Amino acid sequence: MKINEFPSQTTRHRVRVKNIEIGGPDFVVIAGPCSIESREQLSTTAQAVKKSGASMLRGGIWKMRTNPQSFQGLGNEAIDLIREVTAQTGLGMVAEITDPRQMDVLHQVVDAYQVGARNMYNYALLKELGHQKKPVLLKRGFSALVDEWLKAAEYITIGGNSNVILCERGIRTFETSTRYTFDLNSVLVAKAKGPFPVIVDPSHAVGMREFVPQLSLAAAAAGADGLIIEVHPIPETALSDGRQSMNLTSFDSLMKTLEKVLLAVDRPLARPQ
Amino acid sequence: MKINEFPSQTTRHRVRVKNIEIGGPDFVVIAGPCSIESREQLSTTAQAVKKSGASMLRGGIWKMRTNPQSFQGLGNEAIDLIREVTAQTGLGMVAEITDPRQMDVLHQVVDAYQVGARNMYNYALLKELGHQKKPVLLKRGFSALVDEWLKAAEYITIGGNSNVILCERGIRTFETSTRYTFDLNSVLVAKAKGPFPVIVDPSHAVGMREFVPQLSLAAAAAGADGLIIEVHPIPETALSDGRQSMNLTSFDSLMKTLEKVLLAVDRPLARPQ
Amino acid sequence: MKINEFPSQTTRHRVRVKNIEIGGPDFVVIAGPCSIESREQLSTTAQAVKKSGASMLRGGIWKMRTNPQSFQGLGNEAIDLIREVTAQTGLGMVAEITDPRQMDVLHQVVDAYQVGARNMYNYALLKELGHQKKPVLLKRGFSALVDEWLKAAEYITIGGNSNVILCERGIRTFETSTRYTFDLNSVLVAKAKGPFPVIVDPSHAVGMREFVPQLSLAAAAAGADGLIIEVHPIPETALSDGRQSMNLTSFDSLMKTLEKVLLAVDRPLARPQ
Amino acid sequence: MKINEFPSQTTRHRVRVKNIEIGGPDFVVIAGPCSIESREQLSTTAQAVKKSGASMLRGGIWKMRTNPQSFQGLGNEAIDLIREVTAQTGLGMVAEITDPRQMDVLHQVVDAYQVGARNMYNYALLKELGHQKKPVLLKRGFSALVDEWLKAAEYITIGGNSNVILCERGIRTFETSTRYTFDLNSVLVAKAKGPFPVIVDPSHAVGMREFVPQLSLAAAAAGADGLIIEVHPIPETALSDGRQSMNLTSFDSLMKTLEKVLLAVDRPLARPQ
Repeated sequence: MKINEFPSQTTRHRVRVKNIEIGGPDFVVIAGPCSIESREQLSTTAQAVKKSGASMLRGGIWKMRTNPQSFQGLGNEAIDLIREVTAQTGLGMVAEITDPRQMDVLHQVVDAYQVGARNMYNYALLKELGHQKKPVLLKRGFSALVDEWLKAAEYITIGGNSNVILCERGIRTFETSTRYTFDLNSVLVAKAKGPFPVIVDPSHAVGMREFVPQLSLAAAAAGADGLIIEVHPIPETALSDGRQSMNLTSFDSLMKTLEKVLLAVDRPLARPQ
Repeated sequence: MKINEFPSQTTRHRVRVKNIEIGGPDFVVIAGPCSIESREQLSTTAQAVKKSGASMLRGGIWKMRTNPQSFQGLGNEAIDLIREVTAQTGLGMVAEITDPRQMDVLHQVVDAYQVGARNMYNYALLKELGHQKKPVLLKRGFSALVDEWLKAAEYITIGGNSNVILCERGIRTFETSTRYTFDLNSVLVAKAKGPFPVIVDPSHAVGMREFVPQLSLAAAAAGADGLIIEVHPIPETALSDGRQSMNLTSFDSLMKTLEKVLLAVDRPLARPQ
Repeated sequence: MKINEFPSQTTRHRVRVKNIEIGGPDFVVIAGPCSIESREQLSTTAQAVKKSGASMLRGGIWKMRTNPQSFQGLGNEAIDLIREVTAQTGLGMVAEITDPRQMDVLHQVVDAYQVGARNMYNYALLKELGHQKKPVLLKRGFSALVDEWLKAAEYITIGGNSNVILCERGIRTFETSTRYTFDLNSVLVAKAKGPFPVIVDPSHAVGMREFVPQLSLAAAAAGADGLIIEVHPIPETALSDGRQSMNLTSFDSLMKTLEKVLLAVDRPLARPQ
Repeated sequence: MKINEFPSQTTRHRVRVKNIEIGGPDFVVIAGPCSIESREQLSTTAQAVKKSGASMLRGGIWKMRTNPQSFQGLGNEAIDLIREVTAQTGLGMVAEITDPRQMDVLHQVVDAYQVGARNMYNYALLKELGHQKKPVLLKRGFSALVDEWLKAAEYITIGGNSNVILCERGIRTFETSTRYTFDLNSVLVAKAKGPFPVIVDPSHAVGMREFVPQLSLAAAAAGADGLIIEVHPIPETALSDGRQSMNLTSFDSLMKTLEKVLLAVDRPLARPQ
């Protein structure tokens, strides 16, 4: 890495998603369930995380599960639930797209498209997302080099859409005591080498809810631009990723400490305008 | 891994691709250029590799390049070239599919679809390939566990298409002296745990043409079901992967030694019927 | 990982090193040069880091360099310099031991022995360190599982010396944009599964001085027990690890922000008593 | 890797160990138990592997076990057993050294010292081995770059002892279905970049005895200079590494196929002179 290749601060992208800005002075927290499971689950979670200080909602519609026999998401049923709950709370919505043909229905309810780690190299999908204007939250493939991650973002920007937000979510290494290895170094390198905001997904990066707060505070202290956290009213009953989902109380408690750490590094928590 | 979970030999899939069978007693060699570049390049290569003992042709149409500025393949132009050259030589054809919407045109000229390493987790694509009958050559993602690879194959078979051929093409590790790390262990484990034929792509697995013969002989000695090798008339001028492509003479020389090694392990080289 | 295997807080080891305690409520910062190069270099650094808030000194005597032609440390010449500078400043000293036969001379001047990453599996050395009473700072091997790291500590404690401090210093992964990959997850797992204090070496973990402050703040926010940081009066002229060494001014500036972050997580900075 | 840095064949080291030569035209097979457990176990194994075509004996005296509570080897008791069994069979002996202070007793009975993977970075030990004349079998650290492995060999040769034999024994990767990942690529690179013979340890490289024959044949077909294989009369009762040890019958059967594969690549099996 040559230091003098790093873009100066003036060229940094700030990405507006509905009523918040990512990559500017504010630190953004996105929260919500791994999979959308029911009206009550989504609504309860959305209201709670908003009250605790989250400024955007996440939730899965079509799930990419390793095992084809596992729960694959509510699919189209989830679309109306999103419409309802975002109207209720005013929160912006991010949801994953796994097939270009989902865009027709998905664009009606999301404020940003998420590209999951398993699709970071799906250049056909990235090209499509470059030909529309909504922001794209591009997760790092779990074995992608930082340079490949930035090149994947270029598959989007080359089409005319520069609203890309990068998201580190853990990489695959030899260590097996946690689900993935959170790679904080790469957050720093990605911010230094590219113009994009970089946020962190601590839930996937460690895979155990008891360690999500520590990673969240670390990401904030180190200068990430935000977090995307899995939260569920009763994680033990979640249809996917329950082991790594925080419950509403723990999330609220995390947000209180997070604000103190952000204060220490002179960065305000974003609030929807 | 529990030994007693391994399927017995009687349940093994043999996959017929045009005029050859993969996963049976014969050892199959697929060869051809990384990208199809011109009529002459494809035709010259096809005739030469056939003469040397290859029983099937490979060639890229739409390329998945890390850099969006790199050569992305001839695209539709290549379709007629394939039709012509396979008619000329009688060889079966395998080519990569990178988007479900390519199937309309691709199914006219290929005898097997290839899913590249970067798309092994693209479950939307795998599901589509499960709803048709042509064989699928499923490359291992370069950081996929053997179990994930077998689960990805299940995304195809669950739709009704059991004609899956697995292909090991190197994994990503800490070692940087070669492009990827050829993982021979996983060829053995994949054969032991799943019912599918397993072949090896030595060209990607090492990334340097001078080491492709050694890996090819090793794969044959260790019991793989075949090879897929990048060959180009003038590798130094190739528009992609030239560094790892063999020229026609070296390929011919490799095939001669390969036959001797196959003889040592009592396995005939497949010949198109 | 089974949660109920985690030791309760009451069994945690607190390790006293001269005039400070590691693993208790206070957060400890150890700083100093990679290699001891001269009286002036060591003395200047020691006084500066003490003034900035470090509570212990580090410095290499015999260096483990990959290349046998590289600078191998001052060796015995460094012993008198350490004696002099620790007397001057009152700081405790930690230095690496690379051969059991160095103990005779080393024990005169160090308050804790450091075992480097390359020697974490050198069980002959660990056993020797278990038969004496000085604390041991045990760096994690750069490809060691957390379980192997804890087992390595047991090679020391089994001999009767329970004064072990663990130190995460980055692991080797496929990512090459930084020297190693800082593994914050394993800091959390090691603290949860073992009774030992765990500190972080951000200098080796990222390998570029411009990223050392961010990792340091992250480690503090996430609950590590301290830091060991490479500092040099003129890093550009350092005989080893210059690229990752902070200068005196940057280190002072880091310490000011560090105190704010520690305040946010209710943890005081240790001060020598 | 620059091709033109590769040494020409004329500079290659051939290493004589007692009555055989490694790195010349012959392919060498070293076999024996992981740990020496008793006179009968060592003697039975030595006679059987010799009869099957092995030309050298291996056996552990002091074991480097991850768990300090596991069997640590017979230690000095094994010395007399080695003396007896090598006299009986005429086989050369290789055994691991884990501490420089073992050399006094070990040099009496070994024809080559083995440095284990966990000690590849133990430069203090390597330097000592450079100051004597017996050959050194240097295993690759399981996360060592090829360049680091060659530099480690230089720690030996710099002292005046150029009798170094490299041994690939598997690396640590994300894949967990086998104990380690056999890295055949690095065998090829190490031979191309350095002047040393390179052999393969398939037992550690895969960790399951049922896959040891396939790796052995692959190594031979790919041009390695030999093998070191764990063999035990009753692997199920072995005090260490039983899961990866072959029994006498399987080893004999492997040797028969190995000779056929060696014939195919024009390489004779070494026989003690």
